[in-house]
Amino acid sequence: MPSTPNTRPGGRTAAVRAAVLDATENALIEDGFAGMDLPAIARAAGVGKTTVYRRWGTPQVLVADLLDQMAGQSVPATRTGDLLADLQANAELVVDTLADPRQGRLFAALIAAATHDRSTRAALDDFYRTRVDEWSQCLADAVDRGDAPTDTDAAEVIRHLSAPLYYRFLTTSSAPTRADAQRSVRATVAALRAGVFADSG
Amino acid sequence: MPSTPNTRPGGRTAAVRAAVLDATENALIEDGFAGMDLPAIARAAGVGKTTVYRRWGTPQVLVADLLDQMAGQSVPATRTGDLLADLQANAELVVDTLADPRQGRLFAALIAAATHDRSTRAALDDFYRTRVDEWSQCLADAVDRGDAPTDTDAAEVIRHLSAPLYYRFLTTSSAPTRADAQRSVRATVAALRAGVFADSG
Repeated sequence: MPSTPNTRPGGRTAAVRAAVLDATENALIEDGFAGMDLPAIARAAGVGKTTVYRRWGTPQVLVADLLDQMAGQSVPATRTGDLLADLQANAELVVDTLADPRQGRLFAALIAAATHDRSTRAALDDFYRTRVDEWSQCLADAVDRGDAPTDTDAAEVIRHLSAPLYYRFLTTSSAPTRADAQRSVRATVAALRAGVFADSG
Repeated sequence: MPSTPNTRPGGRTAAVRAAVLDATENALIEDGFAGMDLPAIARAAGVGKTTVYRRWGTPQVLVADLLDQMAGQSVPATRTGDLLADLQANAELVVDTLADPRQGRLFAALIAAATHDRSTRAALDDFYRTRVDEWSQCLADAVDRGDAPTDTDAAEVIRHLSAPLYYRFLTTSSAPTRADAQRSVRATVAALRAGVFADSG
């Protein structure tokens, strides 16, 4: 029997979730979404197959729950008081994540899964929205300092910063580099200064 | 017997390739890379299963050949003599392609396949390199007119223009729009004017 009378339900539930999502992440990295196998994930997590089927049921639900956990665990955004430094830190975090063999494969698998599964796409959308909102705060700081236009669409700035790095990651054979991060920062700031990210436009 | 004595070998071969690649495209759109089935593709193309196995052998080789065909068939780049108009035409072509239900699913399937298959990634890299080179000519025109810095990395400009549109397509639940195309043009031109795309980096 997997549960014992003296285990708090919350603690037990949380531990099972952590183990299953850890196994889900490994499965995505090793086999991709198409290769996900619930019984194998249950085995790797050390929990009963029935638990995984009852609580999650499908690879889609597992992946959505993993993305929800990832959104909750994200690193706090850098806020140095200098917009260029903040954007550089964000762009370098993106590059380091995508260039990391395990993290890169995880994100590639999540994005690939989202292309053909609507619920994964919605979960990925939520995940990026959370990340973008966190990093958008450095734009609010810049507006407060008078260093960015008051009508700046902060989320659009952060998305513009990530876009060339993800585009390189997904459509070429080479991972994005620190030089790409720096160019993306310079391009984003030039567009910001030119008023391209005004909220109305 | 699929061949007849009075059919020219080149014509017959080209017709078989066209039919098989057409069926490959449909299979990718309908079932994605993971769902590709060579006997079903042969049936849909009206050719023998043995022909498909002998000539292509694997879904990877079929997809690489499809990308090669797509690269050869691409629409000539717009060259109006005005950089903004040229970039706008390119960005709108990207948006219209990604927002088109069939083309959008085809590109999503190709990009997803490239995330977990090295040969598909190399073929996708080649395809985009061809497209980017074609569209880069409008930057050469702009340099000739004195409308862009002489040391402009033209391919990088074109990639920067596409990046926000693909990023939206792949990481959110909404397809890119004409407004996104326009913002990407404005952002790219602002970065170009600021010297961000100088060849030295």
